[in-house]
Amino acid sequence: MAASAGPEIERLISLLAKLPGMGPRSARRAALALLKRREQLLVPLAASLVETADKVVNCSVCGSPDTRDPCSVCSDQSRDNALICVVEEAGALWAMERSGAFRGKYHVLGGLLSALDGVGPEQLRIAELIGRVKGGEMGGGEAREVVLALPATVDGQTTAHYLAERLSAAGVQVTSLARGVPVGGELDWLDDGTIIQALRARRPA
Amino acid sequence: MAASAGPEIERLISLLAKLPGMGPRSARRAALALLKRREQLLVPLAASLVETADKVVNCSVCGSPDTRDPCSVCSDQSRDNALICVVEEAGALWAMERSGAFRGKYHVLGGLLSALDGVGPEQLRIAELIGRVKGGEMGGGEAREVVLALPATVDGQTTAHYLAERLSAAGVQVTSLARGVPVGGELDWLDDGTIIQALRARRPA
Repeated sequence: MAASAGPEIERLISLLAKLPGMGPRSARRAALALLKRREQLLVPLAASLVETADKVVNCSVCGSPDTRDPCSVCSDQSRDNALICVVEEAGALWAMERSGAFRGKYHVLGGLLSALDGVGPEQLRIAELIGRVKGGEMGGGEAREVVLALPATVDGQTTAHYLAERLSAAGVQVTSLARGVPVGGELDWLDDGTIIQALRARRPA
Repeated sequence: MAASAGPEIERLISLLAKLPGMGPRSARRAALALLKRREQLLVPLAASLVETADKVVNCSVCGSPDTRDPCSVCSDQSRDNALICVVEEAGALWAMERSGAFRGKYHVLGGLLSALDGVGPEQLRIAELIGRVKGGEMGGGEAREVVLALPATVDGQTTAHYLAERLSAAGVQVTSLARGVPVGGELDWLDDGTIIQALRARRPA
């Protein structure tokens, strides 16, 4: 027994412990902080999670989570529709947006190809990407360039090679972020300056 | 802007960042994990927080958070009513319970005396403690011994000295956990073995 304060608090602690970076001890401390700061933290966080669960959907165009569909980026008329940046997850999209260096649209794959984990092309949003590039009813016209902003890991580069082949066959220019992304690094943890440089020096895949 | 995915997600991230051990980056990762594992994590955590906010109250006897009032420890007839362990917060109570070495009741002060932070005796549950020791209508008979399990910090020891004086005047034996608690350490972070030894070697305050 972790807390001796009833099954509800036990359950809260075990759920908090599943968050990235949390373990049983930090989850207990977090639960304690929530119980102590009931009106300032527990009640608002509960309401915020309920609202997020209710309102947030994945954008039907790019796949990123937002309260609007199409999402705020896809709906932004000032952005370049013919330039699509492919990312693994929304975290990478957020990191790109924080850098302020990209004014095109995005496409969230929802993962990476992985033979080890049994993830094939059909588990990712690759068909939707090809559809957008070819100019279906949703994507808003054909794409001129696809920038692959995938992690510099084995799975990331496998996915990049696969996409480069498929996309080139569809007749679009395919580029990828310049070396400058540290090997083994994930986009969400990069500083903005590195992202800006890597985007400026992007090269054919 | 931290996430570019609507004000709801921004708000969720800023609330998660207030949890102990979390910062803006880890809060973004936590939010992302929640959005990705919607059914397994986001929805259950939202429900758990709502339930905790609804059901958990501070026990009217000892002050610890529980879904029952009196709490499960205070309602446990097999525990020694005449032995009361005084702790700063519920986290210390949970740590004592995990050690399995204490079979009395608890009293949660809700903080420590602190001249610097302007916390005086009237901000803590000290009057309730004196009432329980003297044997009011709630406490269930007079106490034989009060064990002070307060942190070995300046504020913790100031509080212990103050309580020892007040409680001795009320005619109860006052002990405190043996040295063995590391100086500057907080009870919630101790290993069970140290807690057991410190409890066994408790001495007059």
